[in-house]
Amino acid sequence: SGNFFLFAGPCVIEGESMALAIAEKIVNLSDKYAIPYVFKGSYRKANRSRIDSFRGIGDEKALKILQKVGSTFDIPVVTDIHTEEEAFLAAEYVDVLQIPAFLCRQTELLEAAAKTQRWINIKKGQFLSPQAMQFAAQKVVDSGNDQVMLTERGTTFGYQDLVVDYRGIPLMQQFGYPVILDVTHSLQQPNQTAGVTGGLPQLIETMARAGIAVGVDGIFLETHPEPAKALSDGANMLPLDQLDHLLSRLSTICQIIKSF
Amino acid sequence: SGNFFLFAGPCVIEGESMALAIAEKIVNLSDKYAIPYVFKGSYRKANRSRIDSFRGIGDEKALKILQKVGSTFDIPVVTDIHTEEEAFLAAEYVDVLQIPAFLCRQTELLEAAAKTQRWINIKKGQFLSPQAMQFAAQKVVDSGNDQVMLTERGTTFGYQDLVVDYRGIPLMQQFGYPVILDVTHSLQQPNQTAGVTGGLPQLIETMARAGIAVGVDGIFLETHPEPAKALSDGANMLPLDQLDHLLSRLSTICQIIKSF
Amino acid sequence: SGNFFLFAGPCVIEGESMALAIAEKIVNLSDKYAIPYVFKGSYRKANRSRIDSFRGIGDEKALKILQKVGSTFDIPVVTDIHTEEEAFLAAEYVDVLQIPAFLCRQTELLEAAAKTQRWINIKKGQFLSPQAMQFAAQKVVDSGNDQVMLTERGTTFGYQDLVVDYRGIPLMQQFGYPVILDVTHSLQQPNQTAGVTGGLPQLIETMARAGIAVGVDGIFLETHPEPAKALSDGANMLPLDQLDHLLSRLSTICQIIKSF
Amino acid sequence: SGNFFLFAGPCVIEGESMALAIAEKIVNLSDKYAIPYVFKGSYRKANRSRIDSFRGIGDEKALKILQKVGSTFDIPVVTDIHTEEEAFLAAEYVDVLQIPAFLCRQTELLEAAAKTQRWINIKKGQFLSPQAMQFAAQKVVDSGNDQVMLTERGTTFGYQDLVVDYRGIPLMQQFGYPVILDVTHSLQQPNQTAGVTGGLPQLIETMARAGIAVGVDGIFLETHPEPAKALSDGANMLPLDQLDHLLSRLSTICQIIKSF
Repeated sequence: SGNFFLFAGPCVIEGESMALAIAEKIVNLSDKYAIPYVFKGSYRKANRSRIDSFRGIGDEKALKILQKVGSTFDIPVVTDIHTEEEAFLAAEYVDVLQIPAFLCRQTELLEAAAKTQRWINIKKGQFLSPQAMQFAAQKVVDSGNDQVMLTERGTTFGYQDLVVDYRGIPLMQQFGYPVILDVTHSLQQPNQTAGVTGGLPQLIETMARAGIAVGVDGIFLETHPEPAKALSDGANMLPLDQLDHLLSRLSTICQIIKSF
Repeated sequence: SGNFFLFAGPCVIEGESMALAIAEKIVNLSDKYAIPYVFKGSYRKANRSRIDSFRGIGDEKALKILQKVGSTFDIPVVTDIHTEEEAFLAAEYVDVLQIPAFLCRQTELLEAAAKTQRWINIKKGQFLSPQAMQFAAQKVVDSGNDQVMLTERGTTFGYQDLVVDYRGIPLMQQFGYPVILDVTHSLQQPNQTAGVTGGLPQLIETMARAGIAVGVDGIFLETHPEPAKALSDGANMLPLDQLDHLLSRLSTICQIIKSF
Repeated sequence: SGNFFLFAGPCVIEGESMALAIAEKIVNLSDKYAIPYVFKGSYRKANRSRIDSFRGIGDEKALKILQKVGSTFDIPVVTDIHTEEEAFLAAEYVDVLQIPAFLCRQTELLEAAAKTQRWINIKKGQFLSPQAMQFAAQKVVDSGNDQVMLTERGTTFGYQDLVVDYRGIPLMQQFGYPVILDVTHSLQQPNQTAGVTGGLPQLIETMARAGIAVGVDGIFLETHPEPAKALSDGANMLPLDQLDHLLSRLSTICQIIKSF
Repeated sequence: SGNFFLFAGPCVIEGESMALAIAEKIVNLSDKYAIPYVFKGSYRKANRSRIDSFRGIGDEKALKILQKVGSTFDIPVVTDIHTEEEAFLAAEYVDVLQIPAFLCRQTELLEAAAKTQRWINIKKGQFLSPQAMQFAAQKVVDSGNDQVMLTERGTTFGYQDLVVDYRGIPLMQQFGYPVILDVTHSLQQPNQTAGVTGGLPQLIETMARAGIAVGVDGIFLETHPEPAKALSDGANMLPLDQLDHLLSRLSTICQIIKSF
C-alpha cells in the first residue's frame, strides 16, 4: 500500500539556500502526492572523469547543510560516501549512506557503512549483474545491519552507453530489500570524448514510468532549478519545475500497480 | 485513445483445431478488454538453431489455417516470411507480413514484402539500434508502401542474453510508425550450449508492463494452451490460461497512460 | 605447416578490368609469401543500410567476372549469397559460397548452399556466440557437405560498435573447421546516424596480427586500389598498395606460430 | 628493442617462503628470456564478491614480504591499493602502486598514489573505454607524477563475461604510457551464481599471444605452484610450471614484432 518513495535533490550541495529551496519545493510535492521523500545531495564528488571537475564546497559545510535540510523539513537525507572515514563522518549528519556504483564491491567500505547503523543504499555497479547484488547486500547484513536498499543505475552496454535491464528490478526485490531506480544516472552516456559524461534527460519520464510499472519501490533522481547552471552533472538533471508533472504521472501509475 | 493492440498466437501453426481454439479464446479476451487483435502464427520456421528442430506442417496447409482463423473470427492475421517468394505466397492469405529480426536488413525481402501492399511488421535485429530501424522502414516506404510497424525484441547483450532497451520505444515512435514490444522473444536466452534457445517466461508480465507504461502501441506474445507440449519455443510461451490476467492488468495501465 | 590462407578482393565487383587488376596484384603477393589465395568479390549486395546504396552491376555479369578471375589466375573464388536461388546460381561460377553473418541462422539457405557441394564459408552472426556456430556448421554437414569454414567478423558491443573476441577463434577451431578472421568487417562501426556504416581501417594490421598470433587459419580482407572511390564500403577497405607490407608482417608472425 | 616486461606473482601474498619460491622461479625465467620482471602480490583483497572470501595475512606482514622479495632478487615489486592510507603505507615497501579497475575513477586515490612518486599502474575499469583512460592517467600527471602505466583487463560484455578489445592497446599507447595486458583477470567470468568469480585459464596463452602480437608493452599474470590450493582466485592462475613454456613463446613472438 502507499506510493513509491523518492530520493531527490541536486547532484551536489552547492550552498544552503539552494539546498533549502530545492528541498522545500520537493517537500511540497511529496505532501501533495503522499510520496515518502528523502533529500539527496552529495557533499563531495570523488569520481569525476577529469581532475578539474567541481568536487564540492567543503565536507563539513556541505554535511551541515544536509543536516539542516533534514531538520528543517523533518525528512531523512541521503549522501554518498567513498571511504571508511567518510562513512563515519557522514553518518553523523545523514540518515542514509549511499555506496556509489563503482564502489559496490569494496568490502571494507560496506562494512564501515554498515557499522554506522544508518540505512545503506548500494548502487549496482555498471559491471555487476542484479543477481550479484545479493553478495554486496550480504556484506552489510553480515556486519550487523539489515537496513539495505539496492539501486539500479544502468549497466555497461558498449563503451558509450548504459542500458537499464528492468528484469533486474523484480529479481533484486526477491532478496528482500527495497529496490530503487536511479533515472538520472541510468541515462548517462559515459566515456564521451570530452571527458564529460553526457545524458539524455528527455527520457527521464520514460525510464521512470517503466520502473513504476514493474513495481520498483523507489525512484532516485537529481533535479535542479536551472540544470544548465549546475556545478555538476547538469546534463542529466530534471528541471525542478518539471517535477510536479512527473510525480503526478508516476503516482497515478503507482496507484494502479499497487492495486494489483 | 483506445487500448494497445495485440499480436498473439502460437509460435507455429501446429494444426487447424488448435489454431482455432487459441484464436477463439484470445478473441473473447480481446472483446472483453477492447483490444484490437491480430492472430499470429508462423507457417514455417526457417532459422532454428538446429536442423532437427520442428519447422512446420507444410506451407499451404498452414497458410490456409491462418486464413481460416482470420475469416472465422473476422480478425487480421500475421505471419513471418523469409524470402521474396514467401512474401508473395503468404500475402495471399494474411494481412500482415512480418520480417524476422535476423532478416531486417535484407533489402530485397523488404522490397518484395512492401509490394504486396500488406502491412509490414519489421522486427528490430538484435544487432541494430532503434535509430537504424528508420532505414529498414524507409526501404518499405520507398517501395510504395507506408503501412509499416516496428517491433522491439531485445538486443544482443553478451553471448547468452538479450536486453530490452525501453528508450528505443519512444525513439522508434518518432519515425511515425506504430511500435510493438515482443515480450516473448525479448526474454529469450540465446546461444545456450544445447543449441535450444531458452527463456524466462515468468518475466512476461514485467516486460509487458514496462512497455505499456512507456506508451508502446502494441504487444506481441506467443501463447499456447500447454507450452510444455508445444512443437516450437515452448520455453518462452505464455500459458493461454494466464492471458486474461495479463491483459486485464495491461489494459488498466494502458488506460492510465492514454489519459496523460 | 605452411602459411595462413587469404580471402581478399574488392567489396563488390565493379567491373572486369578492375577485378582482374586487383587479382593480379594479390596473386603476385600470394606467390611472394606462399599464401594460398582465394579471390573475393560480391556480385550483389542485399543488406545495405539504405535502399539507395549501390547493389551491383548485374548478377550474371559479375559472376562471369568472378569466374574469369578464377580461370585467368588458376585460383579459387568466393562470393556471398543471400537466397537458395543465389546459391544454385553462384555455385556455377565460384568455388566457395559465403553465408553472410545476418543469414547464418537461415536453415534453408545453409541447406541449399550445402547441396551445391562447394566449400561453404559461414560468417558468425554479430548476435551469435562462437559456440553456437557449431549448429550452423552442422546444418551444412547434415546436408551432405563437410567442406565448412567459419568466419569471425565481430560481435555486437553496444549499438555502434563491434568487438572481436579472440577466445572464439580456438574455440571454433575445436569443431574441426578452418576459422577465418574477417578484419574488414570486424572493424565496422554499425548503426551510424547517417545510415552508412563506418570503419576503422587504420586498425586492420592490429586486428590481423592478433588473429595470426592466436593461430587463425585464414584472413579475410577487402582491398581496393582507391578505397575512397569504391562503390561500396570504402570506409573499411585496405588500400591495395598497403597489402604487401601487411602480408609480409603476417607471414613472418605466422611462421613463428606454426613452429610452435 | 628489448622484450616485453612482465608483472607476475601470486594473487595474494600467502606467506614468505611461498613468495620467495615463486619469485625465484620467475626471476630465473626472466633472466633466461631477458624479460624485465616486476614481482606482483596483493597484500590484502578489498573487493571480494563475498565477505567470507580470504582477504590476506595482515598488511604489514605481507608488505614486508613484498619488500624482501624485492631486495632478495633486486627486482621491483608491485601491489594494489584501495585507499589513500594504503597508498602511503604500501609506497614504503613497493616500487609500483596498482589502482584496481573498480577504483580507476577515484580521483583522491589517484592523487594520493601519485604523490608517493612511485610508478602508478592504473587498471582500466570494466566499464571504461580505452579512450577514457587518458583522464585517469591525467589525474596522476596533474598531481606531479608522470610515471603512469595503463592495464587492460577486459570490459563488461553481458553480465557474466568480459571481453578484451585489442583495439584499445594501440589506442592507449597513443597517450604515451606503457600498456599492459592482464591476461589473468581478462579471462574472469564475473557474476557467477555462487558468488565466486570463475575463469578460463586454458586461454591464457591465446590472450597473451594476441597482446604481444599487437605490440603491448607488458604482460600481467598471476601464477601459483598449485592454483587449486591457492587462497584466492585459484580459478584463473597459471600453474607456475607452465610459465617457462609461455614466456618462451611470447618472447619469440615479441622479437618478431619488435623487428617490424
